[in-house]
Amino acid sequence: MLSKAQIKYIQALQHKKYRQKSRQFTAEGDKIVQELLRDGRVLEVYATADWVEEQQVLLAQLPSLRLEVVEPPLLKQLSALTTPNRAMALLDIPPAAAPGPLNGTIALALETIQDPGNMGTIIRIADWFGIPQIICSPDCVDAYNPKTIQATMGSIARVQIIESDIIPFLQQANVASYAATLHGRDITEFDAIKEGILLIGNESRGLSDAVLEHCTYRITIPRLGGAESLNAAVAAGIICGRMLLG
Amino acid sequence: MLSKAQIKYIQALQHKKYRQKSRQFTAEGDKIVQELLRDGRVLEVYATADWVEEQQVLLAQLPSLRLEVVEPPLLKQLSALTTPNRAMALLDIPPAAAPGPLNGTIALALETIQDPGNMGTIIRIADWFGIPQIICSPDCVDAYNPKTIQATMGSIARVQIIESDIIPFLQQANVASYAATLHGRDITEFDAIKEGILLIGNESRGLSDAVLEHCTYRITIPRLGGAESLNAAVAAGIICGRMLLG
Repeated sequence: MLSKAQIKYIQALQHKKYRQKSRQFTAEGDKIVQELLRDGRVLEVYATADWVEEQQVLLAQLPSLRLEVVEPPLLKQLSALTTPNRAMALLDIPPAAAPGPLNGTIALALETIQDPGNMGTIIRIADWFGIPQIICSPDCVDAYNPKTIQATMGSIARVQIIESDIIPFLQQANVASYAATLHGRDITEFDAIKEGILLIGNESRGLSDAVLEHCTYRITIPRLGGAESLNAAVAAGIICGRMLLG
Repeated sequence: MLSKAQIKYIQALQHKKYRQKSRQFTAEGDKIVQELLRDGRVLEVYATADWVEEQQVLLAQLPSLRLEVVEPPLLKQLSALTTPNRAMALLDIPPAAAPGPLNGTIALALETIQDPGNMGTIIRIADWFGIPQIICSPDCVDAYNPKTIQATMGSIARVQIIESDIIPFLQQANVASYAATLHGRDITEFDAIKEGILLIGNESRGLSDAVLEHCTYRITIPRLGGAESLNAAVAAGIICGRMLLG
């Protein structure tokens, strides 16, 4: 049974301040928890009896996992989401790291992404395209926000999230960088790239001039219709779809 | 001043049942309301005094617009969103129409898209790529849902939304159709298309077998990493970015 202190602790992890202090986070949702369990990094699971029953094959492979069967009303209390799920997992936030060398890989760099859903969706896109690291400017929304984690659909376990100022990262990486803008070179003019940095900026303002000055190319998704802009995560997806696949 | 009956009416439009009965909907948000006003289809605006002051040049061009200056607490009461905006517009839902002939255009067909944010984001993608019509299966989330409208960022005014069963539409259109699946032909194998139907299915189940049987091609975004799937709106964006731009 969960103690009052444990319940309070799990609820506190909805807030960035407590996540940063304890270096732990929660993930909610049937599919996400299953994926994270397969990945072997889950410390504890809180789930309804029916979910535990359904997942007994998976759970039997994880004898050291701490599992708490909880009643739906308690799970609802623990949940950070308006539509609570049947399972929730507790995990460690990986230790903070500096950006690694690209060594023939692609990195995404995000400047001031504010929407947790967009952040999570971009992490999922990176995972789909095999992008190992995402560099987030310190003013991006926290990647371990419960809404972000939900939008990653489990991809948070496979993509390294690194907080770093963008300009020093670009200077140190010393590879070609491609900045998503509204008035740059048509993405269809480029061949597929094997190594480089793709940059996506804030939802309303895009990338800052300071960052743009340090980028090799400004690139643009050709607009054939009337919309003023695209959603930041969709733009990231379209750019990956062109720049990585050719 | 808004009467109690008007307030009740605007609030009722948060619900699909009332939108369908009255054939009207509301749109919220500074930028969206501005875009819709420029498009000339707004019937009434409810906005705070500071927003009206800021937009006086735009509003002066619309002498027949009915404008109500409201206090922020009342706007909050009218709002369907958790973070209410400074302006809200009332518009007519366009009359229901049958799918038009493609005549050298691309159409999107959506089967059972359930998330209002995805629906709105897909409408915005269609607008960006100049896709004039979106065919929605009758069990899609309502395109005039307040969360959908917000995610369209004004694009709702430029893309025709048509409710129709997908299979009769495919049969009648009689052009090549491209179904997004997880195990189809690599999208990079195709040249840019000028006419045709791109199909996107439900967020968890994808397209139904019944619809797939009526499609010319099954297409797939190549997966280079570990994610099981992509967000439906992101997939729609990547597919448009390849199939329309070549």
